[in-house]
Amino acid sequence: MEIDKLKRVIRRNTLIDGSRRENGAEHSWHVGMLAMTMGEHAPPGTDLERVVALLLVHDLVEIDTGDCFRHDVPGETRPSLQQDGPGPDTLAAATRIFGLLPHDQRVRLRALWDEFEERRTQEARFAKALDRLAPILANHHNEGGTWALYKVTARHLADSVRIIHEGSATLGAYAARMIESSVARGHLAP
Amino acid sequence: MEIDKLKRVIRRNTLIDGSRRENGAEHSWHVGMLAMTMGEHAPPGTDLERVVALLLVHDLVEIDTGDCFRHDVPGETRPSLQQDGPGPDTLAAATRIFGLLPHDQRVRLRALWDEFEERRTQEARFAKALDRLAPILANHHNEGGTWALYKVTARHLADSVRIIHEGSATLGAYAARMIESSVARGHLAP
Repeated sequence: MEIDKLKRVIRRNTLIDGSRRENGAEHSWHVGMLAMTMGEHAPPGTDLERVVALLLVHDLVEIDTGDCFRHDVPGETRPSLQQDGPGPDTLAAATRIFGLLPHDQRVRLRALWDEFEERRTQEARFAKALDRLAPILANHHNEGGTWALYKVTARHLADSVRIIHEGSATLGAYAARMIESSVARGHLAP
Repeated sequence: MEIDKLKRVIRRNTLIDGSRRENGAEHSWHVGMLAMTMGEHAPPGTDLERVVALLLVHDLVEIDTGDCFRHDVPGETRPSLQQDGPGPDTLAAATRIFGLLPHDQRVRLRALWDEFEERRTQEARFAKALDRLAPILANHHNEGGTWALYKVTARHLADSVRIIHEGSATLGAYAARMIESSVARGHLAP
């Protein structure tokens, strides 16, 4: 019942056709599906089923915190998330939301969320790579999508490319090529 | 890119707060999460990670067929899906959509979709049970939700209860209790 609310957490990026902004639940499904199809680009031995599980739970805290956008949004006062790792509000949200579960489930799902945030396992690094890849894929295939609106430049995306590369060298290179080609076409400022 | 379209396939049921109708992508995420939390109600030995995978792909064909609703909808001419198992349009959709993938992925994902449809494994029966449980959970907790709109009665839901019971005896009993209590409260016609 509680997690139904993630369907009402609206992200900054849109669907690939640009028709509306995406919500956290459908985004979580999409990146879970990416894990099911992009597995050949994960380091050998990566447990892809755990990658799926990490991605299904990774945004649950946004039920309380709202979408954590990584870039400055002109005219918005809500601070965007510039630092790596969860802030105090995010940790409080995790405590409340996972705390609704019985003990064994609380421990198991919280551990998945912590693993994703900490990025110490190859599963978490690959999961995070897919999470960062998704909006680049969408904007690249939608003539720049929301990049112009939020004044995102190729330079801003360097951090995403680094994180994608840490999860998968081939996907990191792929993201860099998409960004280059978006700049070349005039869909993204350098 | 292609599966982004599932975010635009609108189901008949609403979010639990009734604010809007649910789409296929966020529904698929929600039932995947149900698999991650309801596992103790699956028969011993059920591979819950495969249940999650089955649920993430189970509605992909609706990109072509649209939502397959199981009850008659007054004033709508599109036939609702009364029979168990996929019709010819559904199979054509599966061929097209999974056919977009490279061979190895096509075989693997199509096998998951076939497994879900055929319900011959305990994983598929449990996955299908969760798929049928989700709208009952939502409507039960939303004063009957869309049941009245579509003239769904407790008798119509007997088929869902049977399918849930085949996947999980405890969840079948739970669904039956929710339906009984919805009838008792006047939120569902007998």
